[in-house]
Amino acid sequence: MPRYKCIVSYDGTHFVGFQKQLSARTIQGEIENALTQINKKPIRIYASGRTDSGVHALHQVFHFDSPLEIASENWQRAMNSLLPSDVYIKSVEPVSSDFHARYNVVFKEYRYYLSMGEYDPLKYNYIFQYNRPLDLEKMQEAIQLFVGTHDFRRFSSGNERLTTVRTIMEAAITRQGDLLEFRFRGNGFLRYQVRMMVGTLIEIGELRRSKESIQDLLALKPGKAGTTASPNGLYLYHVEYPSEK
Amino acid sequence: MPRYKCIVSYDGTHFVGFQKQLSARTIQGEIENALTQINKKPIRIYASGRTDSGVHALHQVFHFDSPLEIASENWQRAMNSLLPSDVYIKSVEPVSSDFHARYNVVFKEYRYYLSMGEYDPLKYNYIFQYNRPLDLEKMQEAIQLFVGTHDFRRFSSGNERLTTVRTIMEAAITRQGDLLEFRFRGNGFLRYQVRMMVGTLIEIGELRRSKESIQDLLALKPGKAGTTASPNGLYLYHVEYPSEK
Repeated sequence: MPRYKCIVSYDGTHFVGFQKQLSARTIQGEIENALTQINKKPIRIYASGRTDSGVHALHQVFHFDSPLEIASENWQRAMNSLLPSDVYIKSVEPVSSDFHARYNVVFKEYRYYLSMGEYDPLKYNYIFQYNRPLDLEKMQEAIQLFVGTHDFRRFSSGNERLTTVRTIMEAAITRQGDLLEFRFRGNGFLRYQVRMMVGTLIEIGELRRSKESIQDLLALKPGKAGTTASPNGLYLYHVEYPSEK
Repeated sequence: MPRYKCIVSYDGTHFVGFQKQLSARTIQGEIENALTQINKKPIRIYASGRTDSGVHALHQVFHFDSPLEIASENWQRAMNSLLPSDVYIKSVEPVSSDFHARYNVVFKEYRYYLSMGEYDPLKYNYIFQYNRPLDLEKMQEAIQLFVGTHDFRRFSSGNERLTTVRTIMEAAITRQGDLLEFRFRGNGFLRYQVRMMVGTLIEIGELRRSKESIQDLLALKPGKAGTTASPNGLYLYHVEYPSEK
């Protein structure tokens, strides 16, 4: 049965999250509804991972199997015509049956946006409105401590059943005017991990916490990460897979 | 009684418009509620004009009278603490009692954003998603025909009771990648005027209409303006008053 890989972007504001739930609006639920209508039978999708309520995606990936052999552009058009305005299928392509959107991930990149400037009511759902200055240099030094392979247990919801070891290949903060952009590229992220890393970095930028506390948390010494930062500023920016041969 | 001039920005998405209505969410209603709480008696505000449902403002102006003599920053803080996240008071300043937010306007500037690129679900409420190419050069020539003093009756809701003559001092379209920004600066605008001018320009960019049709409409010859463009892309960008002496 043909397998299709899809790239999807969405505005997470009015969803309880990616993962399907009974009687709550989810991205998975909307996409499966659309595919079920097209296929006239239930279709299940498999994504690279979940995103939480309020978290956005510019490039999330999922796959599904369908007996229908439809050209890519027609799949895309049919799905988008059935999807609500806050979900958009960017591409559909046939892939081999051993492609798996979750198991084949090479890396994921998340970005987080924080405003140190004046409150902007038009960006409330899209940028974390911190609205005060932060010590960027201290945060830029500290974020480098996340790079490498570490046990991120202290930067998770605490409900992980499997390993909490993850590898972060790249982490950086850049500034454009009053806007900070945090970038994290890693082989995978625990639930709340990015928001807890950002929350910890904010406390370092407030001079309320030393960068050494990150080393202690990664060494699993006693202590707590910073407050989980608001989901509004978080974007799943990219998911990378092995290039097709 | 002291009079205060306020600058406010808002996300128009979840409002039926600026002007107060019974049992519907309006910007005026939210602001008057906040002021009434602070003053412990009903306060009425007077804005430079209305905006319609879905239309945003980066710099709308209103005034109100209050016997309370509170410092500007404290007015601002008190109001913002009572207002919802989609309305933000940018400044409050005492003005002389002959200042009137509606009657003293020198010019207003509206901006309209249209995307010719791929659909973006994160910008649905903030940019008109046209998502197809347009002939920008033709539109840029045509928009100049609006500049000057004209009877804009054909570019209005048709419910105007008073004069439909208005003056546009500046009009321009600039392009950044796939994003078009329309700018209109005028001494005042009729209801739907900007959206009808944009809708007409879009039809010119689609080569479905000649620029001469604008001259005909401004000369009140028979004919109809283009389809009123979506409110989502429209922003009240600035309201200018005589400089204080």
